[in-house]
Amino acid sequence: MNWILKKKERVLFTLPLPEPTHLLDRLREKFPDIDFEYINFGTIETFRKPETIPRETLAGKTVLVTAGGLPATAADCPDLELIHFISAGVNHVQKHPIYTNSDIPLATVSGIHGPPIAEWVLMTTLLRNREYEKFYEAQKEHQWLNYPAKGARDMVGQRIGILGYGSIGRQVANVSRAMGMEVLAYTATPKTTPESRKDHGFVVPGTGDADGTIPSQWFSGTDKADLHNFLSQDLDILLIAVPLTPQTHHFISKAEFEVLAKRRTFISNIARGPVIDQPALVEALKNGDIRGAAVDVTDPEPLPADDPLWDAPNVTITPHVSAQNSQTVERIFQVIEANLERKQKGEKLINIVDRKRGY
Amino acid sequence: MNWILKKKERVLFTLPLPEPTHLLDRLREKFPDIDFEYINFGTIETFRKPETIPRETLAGKTVLVTAGGLPATAADCPDLELIHFISAGVNHVQKHPIYTNSDIPLATVSGIHGPPIAEWVLMTTLLRNREYEKFYEAQKEHQWLNYPAKGARDMVGQRIGILGYGSIGRQVANVSRAMGMEVLAYTATPKTTPESRKDHGFVVPGTGDADGTIPSQWFSGTDKADLHNFLSQDLDILLIAVPLTPQTHHFISKAEFEVLAKRRTFISNIARGPVIDQPALVEALKNGDIRGAAVDVTDPEPLPADDPLWDAPNVTITPHVSAQNSQTVERIFQVIEANLERKQKGEKLINIVDRKRGY
Repeated sequence: MNWILKKKERVLFTLPLPEPTHLLDRLREKFPDIDFEYINFGTIETFRKPETIPRETLAGKTVLVTAGGLPATAADCPDLELIHFISAGVNHVQKHPIYTNSDIPLATVSGIHGPPIAEWVLMTTLLRNREYEKFYEAQKEHQWLNYPAKGARDMVGQRIGILGYGSIGRQVANVSRAMGMEVLAYTATPKTTPESRKDHGFVVPGTGDADGTIPSQWFSGTDKADLHNFLSQDLDILLIAVPLTPQTHHFISKAEFEVLAKRRTFISNIARGPVIDQPALVEALKNGDIRGAAVDVTDPEPLPADDPLWDAPNVTITPHVSAQNSQTVERIFQVIEANLERKQKGEKLINIVDRKRGY
Repeated sequence: MNWILKKKERVLFTLPLPEPTHLLDRLREKFPDIDFEYINFGTIETFRKPETIPRETLAGKTVLVTAGGLPATAADCPDLELIHFISAGVNHVQKHPIYTNSDIPLATVSGIHGPPIAEWVLMTTLLRNREYEKFYEAQKEHQWLNYPAKGARDMVGQRIGILGYGSIGRQVANVSRAMGMEVLAYTATPKTTPESRKDHGFVVPGTGDADGTIPSQWFSGTDKADLHNFLSQDLDILLIAVPLTPQTHHFISKAEFEVLAKRRTFISNIARGPVIDQPALVEALKNGDIRGAAVDVTDPEPLPADDPLWDAPNVTITPHVSAQNSQTVERIFQVIEANLERKQKGEKLINIVDRKRGY
């Protein structure tokens, strides 16, 4: 047994929603030795602007679960051993003293969005393959469409390149493999060993590729030559799932569309709009250089009504909804449960932020 | 070695399309000892009405690959050891003397349609989950839709019941599992042993569930009590993938919708229209007894313009296109290649028709 004698665990939730009692009760039942306190704190609107949690509220608390509210400084929370955010990232607190001037471990719920976003990728790819909208318009007119018998190419044997092999890319890979596709992964740093290919963060049970065994080939790099080598691999589909950083700003631009034109690669973007040079995307669609695109993110957002992307051919645009999901709160609690269990057992926590890297 | 001394293999193709030379060449390369002859025979229009292949054309031929053309009688083809159809079924020849008065083995290409139909099932289920059409309509209007943040329930943990666990059901199961779902299978006859759960027919490589290991539970039966027990298993989705027989005519009718109403089960039909009592389906949709439906088949086809199903709420209707696929001819040749290889080695052929059962 690796139980360690330690001080009483006291967990404080400060979330901008009424207490999800059934989820708290599940935690209370699973961890009878832990004290749980819940405060409906802040609002959805102030979610991204950290409010200060009073010193006295934090007295004796060992774990803080928060949407954004934070102690003013580390001196206000001497007992705190973990701050657990309910967001996948921590960009909104990176200038806060707790981030810059403390070493309290920060955890995120990164990993919970794999399944819904993978479903969005799949849906939008399949409906472009099959020209679904033609059937939808025909149904509105009560028309039994006289569709060309040859139909679309199905996914078996198609090759998907996944730019950014994180939790989202891994679940897309998992479903793609089940559809008979070949998966190629691209990461910023080389992943040459089995250990380096593993996903050590939270994975929704039954999904993803925690061991990194699905891709048939791995590529890596941050410069354009590396990227072009990857884009030249006869990709039928390119999934963009990299974080937006100075390196990935306009990562897919005119020169990259020229490479992709050889195979007329279909592009799916669930990352951030500025990863693609949007006017270059519009051109590539208009010229037929690429077979089509599906974007859940644009530059800017909302996309202005007069933006030419709206009417470009073979494009599906949705308003940054791919992660939306009625199970989000439940999944957040799954991550917190996993980390409380690890903390109790003295095991390494998951989803801990690397302050230098920023996620 | 189990090679058997035998007469020269002579394969005759009589298909209603120009010779797909690259596919024939692949066979010639793989089987240098076999004679291949190709005749562009009949038309797409006469596909279902068997034309007679002249006796002299068949002289010495050991294998006939055909869309529907047949020898007049078995006496016209004394050397024939296998007739390989390029359709998944043989309903169109069941009254022909070759079917009724010969014992020449008949093979089909059953199994080739799993992937495209599974993709149709997935696409139509996901777009109903996410109310995709709202985004499509908003895009036409250049509107960044103000979508409720809660979103739809994703597929993780959803339970799909597959009525008819053949090649299509198995590939839907395979992709469903990758999405984190639970799969329940229903078959006409009980599948209680691992051996009985196997798929012995053609499976597109990399797809399906050849070993029958994916379902968490198996159900069976042909009467309504068995069916109702299955439908009562808290199914989120019901996939109808049974052949149309006297037993399955109106298999899903008013009483069954009443059972499904408890969970508001979503229904997907890629089998045949008359398996569902269509007026009962329209009622169930109108009452909200079920969450929605996707049907690639209707009763009758084409669906008349004044049929109330067109405007029922939450229904997706497509004109019997789910199997359509630009790779069909290539997949047909994969099955033929598999059977020629087995025949050469003296192994048991796949996809052989049971004349009594009718498939």
